[in-house]
Amino acid sequence: MNEPRREQAREPLYLDDFKAGQRFKCGRGYTVTEGEIRAFAAQFDPQPMHLDPDAARASVFGGLVASGWHTSAITMRLLVESGPAFAGGTVGLGAEVSWPQAVRPGDTLYVESEVLEVIPSSSRPDRGRVRLLAETRNQHGEVVLRLVTHILVPGHAARPSASPSS
Amino acid sequence: MNEPRREQAREPLYLDDFKAGQRFKCGRGYTVTEGEIRAFAAQFDPQPMHLDPDAARASVFGGLVASGWHTSAITMRLLVESGPAFAGGTVGLGAEVSWPQAVRPGDTLYVESEVLEVIPSSSRPDRGRVRLLAETRNQHGEVVLRLVTHILVPGHAARPSASPSS
Repeated sequence: MNEPRREQAREPLYLDDFKAGQRFKCGRGYTVTEGEIRAFAAQFDPQPMHLDPDAARASVFGGLVASGWHTSAITMRLLVESGPAFAGGTVGLGAEVSWPQAVRPGDTLYVESEVLEVIPSSSRPDRGRVRLLAETRNQHGEVVLRLVTHILVPGHAARPSASPSS
Repeated sequence: MNEPRREQAREPLYLDDFKAGQRFKCGRGYTVTEGEIRAFAAQFDPQPMHLDPDAARASVFGGLVASGWHTSAITMRLLVESGPAFAGGTVGLGAEVSWPQAVRPGDTLYVESEVLEVIPSSSRPDRGRVRLLAETRNQHGEVVLRLVTHILVPGHAARPSASPSS
């Protein structure tokens, strides 16, 4: 079990703080236990390859693996804790996700992310979107999750220093 | 808390059992409590709008909402329990997901799915992919999650009756 980390005071980032090509590395890894894999699966993805080591050996995975949604949730945790500090929070509007490799008990996961595009809103100067690529790798450097997501980000006009009258 | 449902004996479906346009309706709803929203968030998405009703009122959501990854996980649960009974399990290779509406405490979610495409493997006669659209709606009929996913499905050649010598 990985205890939630105390939130560090990080300077919140607004839309104009981002540019394509910026990279963020989460400093911390997350080690996934067999117990966590089975507990998540019991609640959300009750299938033999996620629940039962014996049955999992007969599956296409050849052993117990984490639900892809569990890997996605762990990635979110790492992004929230030590990814880019989006002002207003990490609010995803949608995502494309793939799971090129399975996550197995004992794996330690790390997340790196990169800004692909900064998209100001055409109608609202106080917000926009950042298109972010996040890749989650295991301790062998293999990509276990690839995520491209649009994050809603407050724009320059929402920055406290930009509106002294408020 | 929604207890896992006893698995019903459902006939497993192989690639040649699917065709574009087929629709599946999950018979059962899933009611999301405030406690579950906060517990999931504490573990995987520790942000104020998912954890703290007071802070959530000041967010873009105006109140406590479920993490999009929580909504995704609940959708998976409903699909596994009463969606199409894919032979070999519901093994997703990747997905596009969007969250058009927030999920709030007390909402009851329902999932319907539709086969968009059946894609035989060009190299392996024993498998292929089903491209599936799943829509999760709340008790008001509003779509809270839209998911397009590729599911790995065993083909005709993998059906037990098709290989009597095995």
